[in-house]
Amino acid sequence: LGEDAVERHHFEQELQRLNGRIIEMGSKAERMIHAAVQGLVDHNAALAQSVMPLEREVNHMQVENDEIALKLLATQQPVATDLRFLVSAMKVNSELERISDQAVNIAETTLILVKEPPLKRIIDLPLMAREAMDMLRESLESFVKHDVILAKGVIMKDDRVDAFKDQLFRELLTYMISDGSTIPRAISLLLITRNLERIGDQATNIAEEVIYMVEGRDVRHPEKPPKDKV
Amino acid sequence: LGEDAVERHHFEQELQRLNGRIIEMGSKAERMIHAAVQGLVDHNAALAQSVMPLEREVNHMQVENDEIALKLLATQQPVATDLRFLVSAMKVNSELERISDQAVNIAETTLILVKEPPLKRIIDLPLMAREAMDMLRESLESFVKHDVILAKGVIMKDDRVDAFKDQLFRELLTYMISDGSTIPRAISLLLITRNLERIGDQATNIAEEVIYMVEGRDVRHPEKPPKDKV
Repeated sequence: LGEDAVERHHFEQELQRLNGRIIEMGSKAERMIHAAVQGLVDHNAALAQSVMPLEREVNHMQVENDEIALKLLATQQPVATDLRFLVSAMKVNSELERISDQAVNIAETTLILVKEPPLKRIIDLPLMAREAMDMLRESLESFVKHDVILAKGVIMKDDRVDAFKDQLFRELLTYMISDGSTIPRAISLLLITRNLERIGDQATNIAEEVIYMVEGRDVRHPEKPPKDKV
Repeated sequence: LGEDAVERHHFEQELQRLNGRIIEMGSKAERMIHAAVQGLVDHNAALAQSVMPLEREVNHMQVENDEIALKLLATQQPVATDLRFLVSAMKVNSELERISDQAVNIAETTLILVKEPPLKRIIDLPLMAREAMDMLRESLESFVKHDVILAKGVIMKDDRVDAFKDQLFRELLTYMISDGSTIPRAISLLLITRNLERIGDQATNIAEEVIYMVEGRDVRHPEKPPKDKV
């Protein structure tokens, strides 16, 4: 093998390593979302608390991933596809860290809610969380596989997350209006729906970045809202 | 002048152009926040509506700035300080676009609220918005001047934005509990305080990026929360 081929082989290995780390970070973030929401469903403070050490791991991985990508940018000076991949990897890396922040917000609200009697049986919130977690996992899968079809599927799913948010808002409003003593708990639940909505938006950002990376076409700011285009 | 010096001069010019565009984007985002909140204070739908075309301009600038930065990365293959600056510029560019999204969210909520009789005189919300706008402007100034002291000042101010958020939450809660008919409007106002809080967080992200860029030290994830370190 020539020196160039050896160099190229090393570069490819480093890109694969970065891909693997991004999937691992995503799986940690998914566990965080699940634990935060399940802690609420089960009224289990310890489960919600388990989110916190995972956030430190995700933060640590984000810093290291940025360093890996920057080092490759500086030493390999990639162009074209490789350059675009590294820039996209850094953006995905940021989104993942933000998603884990949202999971921490949910866990913090859960820790407040478990001190109170439950306002209602929690049924729709875990379904909404499931949609958001699916979007997250599929967006990362689309990133490592450069799979535009899968990325477009993620973007379509965001409507379902938004529909859950609207439905839960109306339901919580009826609680608040009929019994003022429910207001603080209802607002806490409302804020959790907003955190889950944000996670859906962030998975959408990742999916849009994948389309941009693969097709070189910017879908982040369509002139018409995406719904009109389907 | 040698060829290298000419090349270098061109590169410096492009970096300055990128700086100028980031300041311009920030000033548009600031106008958006101001119009969205002032529209609420004045019960003025047209003012809130004026936010929407500005968002399209900001989105457009974000895409172009990314292209400028990517082109410089690909053609100039910068190392060390220049590389770090370009990567930071792309991150700041993303944060600015998100900040303008928050301003749009505020404007949309304002457009709902102006159809109803005002819940209360709006006094603290514009003060909170002012803090967030100051943080935004100073974070961008710290970016283009590589001014770590200014960046640290921005991070300190975030506590004030958070204090406004907590105070407004308690106040809105008393409205909701004493009169159920105020709940939808109070929740709308509550969501605006969350949007402003997010803008403060995003300006903090920019300031942390500046410190990272200049000092090469990652302040994004301190082991202890920042308050303990002051």
